[in-house]
Amino acid sequence: MKNRQWLIAARPLGRGLLDSDFTLTDGEARSPEDGEALVRTLYLGFDPAQKGWMENIGGYVAPTEIGDVMRGSGIGEVLESRHPNLKAGDKVSGQLGWQEYAALNARDLVKLEDDDLLTANLGALGTTGMTAYFGLLKHGRPQPGDAVIVSGAAGATGSMVGQIAKIAGCRTIGIAGGPEKCAWLTRECGFDAAIDYKSEKKLRAKIKELAPGGVDVIYDNVGGTILNDMLACMAMHARVVICGGISRYETGQLPAGPENYFNLIFMRATMEGFIVLDYMNEYPKARARMRQWIRDGKITFKEDVQEGFENAPRTLMRLFRGENFGKQILKVA
Amino acid sequence: MKNRQWLIAARPLGRGLLDSDFTLTDGEARSPEDGEALVRTLYLGFDPAQKGWMENIGGYVAPTEIGDVMRGSGIGEVLESRHPNLKAGDKVSGQLGWQEYAALNARDLVKLEDDDLLTANLGALGTTGMTAYFGLLKHGRPQPGDAVIVSGAAGATGSMVGQIAKIAGCRTIGIAGGPEKCAWLTRECGFDAAIDYKSEKKLRAKIKELAPGGVDVIYDNVGGTILNDMLACMAMHARVVICGGISRYETGQLPAGPENYFNLIFMRATMEGFIVLDYMNEYPKARARMRQWIRDGKITFKEDVQEGFENAPRTLMRLFRGENFGKQILKVA
Repeated sequence: MKNRQWLIAARPLGRGLLDSDFTLTDGEARSPEDGEALVRTLYLGFDPAQKGWMENIGGYVAPTEIGDVMRGSGIGEVLESRHPNLKAGDKVSGQLGWQEYAALNARDLVKLEDDDLLTANLGALGTTGMTAYFGLLKHGRPQPGDAVIVSGAAGATGSMVGQIAKIAGCRTIGIAGGPEKCAWLTRECGFDAAIDYKSEKKLRAKIKELAPGGVDVIYDNVGGTILNDMLACMAMHARVVICGGISRYETGQLPAGPENYFNLIFMRATMEGFIVLDYMNEYPKARARMRQWIRDGKITFKEDVQEGFENAPRTLMRLFRGENFGKQILKVA
Repeated sequence: MKNRQWLIAARPLGRGLLDSDFTLTDGEARSPEDGEALVRTLYLGFDPAQKGWMENIGGYVAPTEIGDVMRGSGIGEVLESRHPNLKAGDKVSGQLGWQEYAALNARDLVKLEDDDLLTANLGALGTTGMTAYFGLLKHGRPQPGDAVIVSGAAGATGSMVGQIAKIAGCRTIGIAGGPEKCAWLTRECGFDAAIDYKSEKKLRAKIKELAPGGVDVIYDNVGGTILNDMLACMAMHARVVICGGISRYETGQLPAGPENYFNLIFMRATMEGFIVLDYMNEYPKARARMRQWIRDGKITFKEDVQEGFENAPRTLMRLFRGENFGKQILKVA
């Protein structure tokens, strides 16, 4: 059976992604062995970390090789199963990779409820939602009444962070690019305020106006000057969660580090990083809560669904250009 | 009674200290009121934070005004007391300021043992030692077997940090400027290794050679490129203690922030700041331990004693030029 695959053709280290970083090939779908299932890819999910995986930075996932099938999470339908827990027709999520078919160990696949929240398993109920949940709750440690600020707030992770913080009784401020995203944050996602960094010339002053007592929790997805400005506005004993750094991914020269790290001293503050995979054994409980919050209308989300397997590289590039509005998904079949 | 005083004449914000930032005046010693003691200054102690106090940065101590007596800690002898806990002849420490005599509230003075460790109350047994003790133990949270790296290691704080880490069962690496300081760290202070940043061209490679498994605790007194290089060498779950940033104090342009803050993510690491004054109610216990460790020969220290009250500004400047070797002290009387 013909199996189109996108392979890693080059490492985009220190530069933006190029079309030539990927090669589209016609492979063959392998038959499943004992314990495996053959899955047809329905949707792929996209995340900035995928560029880092191509570069082999971080070391928290197995290294990639040039010529490997591009790594990525997806949702698929089981075509054939040689494991008792799965049967043909089941919907599953897992690291399917950028290919139309994948024969994978059944233990690496999560069986999904086949309902209206199917694609949410790539976003709010997937690694994105888990990243927001554990990053905020384990590392931001929000207390009721805290002021929580989130950069990249209209992104798939950032918008979840603000909504979970709201459930936790916090005041929430989002930083996002453009009036449309900002309006969505305050009108749909329940953020108390949103700052459009593209039009706001005095970001620090604006944050201080919105959080006169300082921000207790900073959840950063961006890095660069936005992180630095947020660090200028900390409350005493603030917690700074370093989740991502989209401003760092596209540039040849890394943006300067945050010189206001020194405020950690005066504010007796903490800056922490985390890898969400470390909390994997707590995912089921978190997923159940997120699902309930969605059903209760306390958490909303957007999905940006592109179409066509051939568009996978261009779909990933959308993330780095701020073109996506909502969780970036590609409908493959 | 004539009382020479050094007043703050200008704020050295964003530049090095100048002679003209201070004015020497002849004041009068005030008589003590009820509850106060009149103290004659014997020694003054110096710390980089004093420049920050002149600039009113940080906000963790009361603001200074131009024309104020320059703030600073010292050791003095009680000349006259109007408080039952002190009597003439007692040796005390406190925020005496840069003046020959001070009438101060007795509750703000600590009565000292008048023994061979008298001046150590400005260093190992004073705020310097407390900064090392609480910064390392509360924020570095060292475990036996950990690799601990300290910048500004030959400084009054840094050398204490390494020695306390050694007592806690850690391997200790110091970064200092020049072969003399490095030799002192390994031969006298028991550091396992010392790196001379002035001659070492490949600081990161050297750290990785000395700590192949990465450093578990980073205690930074310097900032700038040295902090950035240390952040490139973290072990998993590393703790980074931000104590000071001597590289930041002299320059008009702040050095770039540490771009490797992003490694906090991959290493699941924590960066924390602290103000030692927050631990003041735990000082007595810490002082007693430090005193015992000194008596047991487990902690050694150096003092760099300059002389003459008129030399106070120049003595402070020595810190920012790396001229002092050991706790910077000025003998006043």
